Amino acid sequence: MQGDLARLVGADHVESDVALADASGLAGRVPVLVHPAAAAEVAAVVAWCYERDVAMVPVGGRSGYSGGIVPVDGEGARDTVAIALDRLDRVRSFAPLSWRMEAEAGVITATIARRARENGLLFPPDPGAAEQSQLGGNLATNAGGPHAFKYGVTGRWVTGVEVVLAPGELVSFGGAVRKDVAGYDLRSLLIGSEGTLGILTAAWLRFVPAPAAALPVAAAFPTVREGCEAIDAVLGSGVVPAAVEYLDARCIVAAPPPFLPGAAGAGLLVVCEAESEEDRDALLEALGVGAVAPPAGEVWRWREGVSIAVRAALGEKLSEDIAVPVDRLAEAIEGTVAIGARHGLEGCSWGHAGDGNLHSSFLLEPGDAEMRERADAAARDLFAMARELGGTASGEHGIGLLKAGQLSAQWAPAAVAAQRAVKAALDPKGLFNPGKKEP
Amino acid sequence: MQGDLARLVGADHVESDVALADASGLAGRVPVLVHPAAAAEVAAVVAWCYERDVAMVPVGGRSGYSGGIVPVDGEGARDTVAIALDRLDRVRSFAPLSWRMEAEAGVITATIARRARENGLLFPPDPGAAEQSQLGGNLATNAGGPHAFKYGVTGRWVTGVEVVLAPGELVSFGGAVRKDVAGYDLRSLLIGSEGTLGILTAAWLRFVPAPAAALPVAAAFPTVREGCEAIDAVLGSGVVPAAVEYLDARCIVAAPPPFLPGAAGAGLLVVCEAESEEDRDALLEALGVGAVAPPAGEVWRWREGVSIAVRAALGEKLSEDIAVPVDRLAEAIEGTVAIGARHGLEGCSWGHAGDGNLHSSFLLEPGDAEMRERADAAARDLFAMARELGGTASGEHGIGLLKAGQLSAQWAPAAVAAQRAVKAALDPKGLFNPGKKEP
Repeated sequence: MQGDLARLVGADHVESDVALADASGLAGRVPVLVHPAAAAEVAAVVAWCYERDVAMVPVGGRSGYSGGIVPVDGEGARDTVAIALDRLDRVRSFAPLSWRMEAEAGVITATIARRARENGLLFPPDPGAAEQSQLGGNLATNAGGPHAFKYGVTGRWVTGVEVVLAPGELVSFGGAVRKDVAGYDLRSLLIGSEGTLGILTAAWLRFVPAPAAALPVAAAFPTVREGCEAIDAVLGSGVVPAAVEYLDARCIVAAPPPFLPGAAGAGLLVVCEAESEEDRDALLEALGVGAVAPPAGEVWRWREGVSIAVRAALGEKLSEDIAVPVDRLAEAIEGTVAIGARHGLEGCSWGHAGDGNLHSSFLLEPGDAEMRERADAAARDLFAMARELGGTASGEHGIGLLKAGQLSAQWAPAAVAAQRAVKAALDPKGLFNPGKKEP
Repeated sequence: MQGDLARLVGADHVESDVALADASGLAGRVPVLVHPAAAAEVAAVVAWCYERDVAMVPVGGRSGYSGGIVPVDGEGARDTVAIALDRLDRVRSFAPLSWRMEAEAGVITATIARRARENGLLFPPDPGAAEQSQLGGNLATNAGGPHAFKYGVTGRWVTGVEVVLAPGELVSFGGAVRKDVAGYDLRSLLIGSEGTLGILTAAWLRFVPAPAAALPVAAAFPTVREGCEAIDAVLGSGVVPAAVEYLDARCIVAAPPPFLPGAAGAGLLVVCEAESEEDRDALLEALGVGAVAPPAGEVWRWREGVSIAVRAALGEKLSEDIAVPVDRLAEAIEGTVAIGARHGLEGCSWGHAGDGNLHSSFLLEPGDAEMRERADAAARDLFAMARELGGTASGEHGIGLLKAGQLSAQWAPAAVAAQRAVKAALDPKGLFNPGKKEP
């Protein structure tokens, strides 16, 4: 196997017996990891694998939260080859005047954002780990982030994708054109499919002119209900905030905001971001007495540390990314704490309030297997609560390996059958990222 | 057949031997047209048809431009039943504070926009014929419109769809939740699929607070090149206009803008819309000397009449809706005129400049069959030009019956095969809207 693959990508770009892990805590090993240099080499590797019933796992920046790159043996697959996209790191074209870029799957997310910013443009998707994650992984999970409230998730900024489909065909759906209804929207189908329908090798991205300002406002509230009422007031203010974030009481204790020193005793902290002074004033008014307008740099530096601070509370945590309709947010925030308590765990949550997207978490002692088991049971209750509230088990991380089986609980059997039929149509041998996004 | 269907939807809601036509000029007949009252009745009709190999054509407001509702005999289908969605006209829920509505497929587009507006919200999609078209048709074609430049096409405002899939299963993909990556994005796959994968019965829509103002600016330019340079200046101004429209010289003669009386001799008229005075001033500066800032009402009333005025020039026209990357716009505008000239026709174009979306047209004498044949040949050249410029045969109207076969010219064989595989997976008998969106 190594010899054949070395002929396709060069001997220097084939690794043997490689451990693969992401930020989910899941890990596994593959016999071979190849690093193709270009889309045509990816196609050659896929063709080689597809012909021989060898399973494939695409590997990006390894910053995912659902175990999407962790290999499992595919049913009927003889073996598994991991395909790293890191050498597909070229920005193929950048046309700032047309607000557009064509970038390969291995380009680092932060590089795209930086190139845009240097030209007065904004690439709005802002998932965490921007310095580590790659465009391909952002596409595979349709990654979100705080500013998805105003700007939507990654897929909204993609006008075309280049992909290797079974049995090794390099094709494109869409391109530099901004509007196209000629074919089925296979671009959107592939985005968020977690590498289970093909391997994305490049995308055409679109940008917008960067907003003049990022003007956060923040306020703390004594209870979850009052905090959520403030979020309603924000949504009713007539302003479209760029982001609407929240932290519950336990998270505020773990990650006290330097810009709102009195917040630590509160039930909910709400942070919004405006893009004009007029809008900021409207948001300040919506948040009410005690609202502050700290510098954006301070807010987002702090915000990026929240997940780490929550983990540090006891040393470990299990975090999910459920989403619910925004008018069910208070129930989901309180439900997270209640579910934790039922399992003898501290439950807490923070996240993207405007999108109803919660990073519901349970605090854990490192290495405590029994506690971890209770947390896994609590996570199942969390998914059930999200469903009951009209929501989803995953707002932005994807199903991966971690949440395999959740879709069947969430979707009707005929809807699940439709997903399976599409998978079988595009990957008849079931070789693309087996075990991931399983209904 | 009529008897069975009458039992499913009521005898008063079954019509026999019905003519079906839309705005494309194509027409046909079906033996039966049923008007189910609810999604469950649609599912019952689909189940009845699917079991008996009867083809189905969904019918909305009949304002489409591609013949999407014009029946053709399906291969292997015994007969055809048209399914009108007009009685599914309920707004099931409207939560203005959560910026959201659940509406059935037969709700008139203008009703949705009006309900939103009355509550300080904006439903951004603005395809033509808003008083006639229905949500289901807007979804089936993923309809665009002038404001798609800033806001995107219909699908961007849909968080969930309810659909009847083969062999008669009523299911939902997505819902009121704003973020969801648990399953494949079958919602986006269904949107724009022109009724060929199932029949949409309802959708969850999202809104945004209505902008404070609609402030158009306009200027005329002596040549296409200078007009397109002004569009570049607009895109480089740092402002995101809500719409960027254009008309070429022939269209200006046919539909002279009352707010820019000197424009009739120009090569290109450019109209943009700002949402704040500051942005309007930046757009005025970008358009340069001679730019005016007319009232929005006057501009959009005039703009809505452009298509009719162009038709009236000779009495008939053939209009397409190609789209190209925005930096190829000038070539496409000039190419339309040149292609017309090659076929002895007056070619002209207007449309959504910011999206590179052209309503390229050829002026016709009513009833002149030979002239119509030349126009059909010219349209084929137009599609070829769009492909050569990196664009598409359809930016917003869909393939329908009119442009059947264009996708195979535009997509690689393996990409076309993927579309066919998805179609076969979800509609194995090929009974949903046969002959439409054919690659």
